[in-house]
Amino acid sequence: MTRELAVVLVSGGLDSAVTTAIAGQRYRLAMLHLNYGQRTERRERQAFQDLANFFAADQTLVVDVGHLAQIGGSSLTDPAIEISHADLESVEIPSSYVPFRNANLLAVATSWAEVISASHIFVGAVDEDSSGYPDCRREFYDAFEAVITAGTRPNTHVRIETPIIQLKKSQIVARGAELGVPFELTWSCYQNEEQACGVCDSCAFRLRGFHKAGIVDPIEYVERPEYS
Amino acid sequence: MTRELAVVLVSGGLDSAVTTAIAGQRYRLAMLHLNYGQRTERRERQAFQDLANFFAADQTLVVDVGHLAQIGGSSLTDPAIEISHADLESVEIPSSYVPFRNANLLAVATSWAEVISASHIFVGAVDEDSSGYPDCRREFYDAFEAVITAGTRPNTHVRIETPIIQLKKSQIVARGAELGVPFELTWSCYQNEEQACGVCDSCAFRLRGFHKAGIVDPIEYVERPEYS
Repeated sequence: MTRELAVVLVSGGLDSAVTTAIAGQRYRLAMLHLNYGQRTERRERQAFQDLANFFAADQTLVVDVGHLAQIGGSSLTDPAIEISHADLESVEIPSSYVPFRNANLLAVATSWAEVISASHIFVGAVDEDSSGYPDCRREFYDAFEAVITAGTRPNTHVRIETPIIQLKKSQIVARGAELGVPFELTWSCYQNEEQACGVCDSCAFRLRGFHKAGIVDPIEYVERPEYS
Repeated sequence: MTRELAVVLVSGGLDSAVTTAIAGQRYRLAMLHLNYGQRTERRERQAFQDLANFFAADQTLVVDVGHLAQIGGSSLTDPAIEISHADLESVEIPSSYVPFRNANLLAVATSWAEVISASHIFVGAVDEDSSGYPDCRREFYDAFEAVITAGTRPNTHVRIETPIIQLKKSQIVARGAELGVPFELTWSCYQNEEQACGVCDSCAFRLRGFHKAGIVDPIEYVERPEYS
């Protein structure tokens, strides 16, 4: 019997790579990458392609959703807003928050899932130990599943899977290591495309996760913070 | 006191024009038009601009969401799928259904609403007397409101208004006439950009609505069906 197909949202970062590995254990992979005008778009797309090759995706789709940059409001897409350096203890929503980004990405993923008859959408969202984005919580995904049920054809049933949402970054690294995720192919930095900066939110969480997992992050950094 | 701002999704058709008139009675208007690769994109955009001028919009935004055409699955965006002629009695979902289109449009509208601090999103969706799209029912919009609450900043509160969702097309025409909507500026045809075809789903519902309202549709048609 042919395995069911799952759409996996893959930015090219650590979390989405581990999520892809988890999805690939049970489903054929339809890997979806979205360019939303982020500063590191070119580098992320390369990471996506490298991961799609590694995981032997059945189908891939790269979609431009440039309207998020056009609408603005985030340091990730608006050069006029400074990228905030990580404050790992802060509970504030950082400047890199793209308003309602994940709903835009999920809407695209659902349209594709309906057309290719995929049964699941996998998202590498992380709530615990994350940057405090409001659209990274499971209740957001539960609400979105209800929208899918209400807004698609009666015979379309798509579930949203968030297998790492409750994991800490160090647990994600450990899980990825168990599953043989090629960390060297991933890209997480919000700031640079050549060598990861080591100080933006995303680099800082990633490096702390590797540190706590006792694993060395194989990619190169301009600067690696010291951990006590 | 300055009026609150409302984002209005405006295709340029009859329903969105009447919805804009309703929204404009209470709110300042932020009119949003989305090109999603539909065949009549150029003509719809002209209708949008004409309506934005007529209603003196505070802000306008035109966004390309070409990925819906890229994903495919609808006769509206895929030239390989034939536009079905209207069957006004059918309960089937027509070939012009774009998978999960309205969720994509609402996600964009919500991102914009959050950035410009709009309090409402107006959508000219019609359930009664409509073409049977699954994402035109109020339950879909209620579900989406829950996603907005779960997925935006804690101080963002956006309500989705669907003021004509329960009206029949003839009632929408009558309401538009009361409000002085410039029907001659609107465009509804799915097929043509020069002269409306008169036979696609959208033309057929529009013409029947005007007929039942006892009002003459001021735009020109290649063919006007006879009503008994």
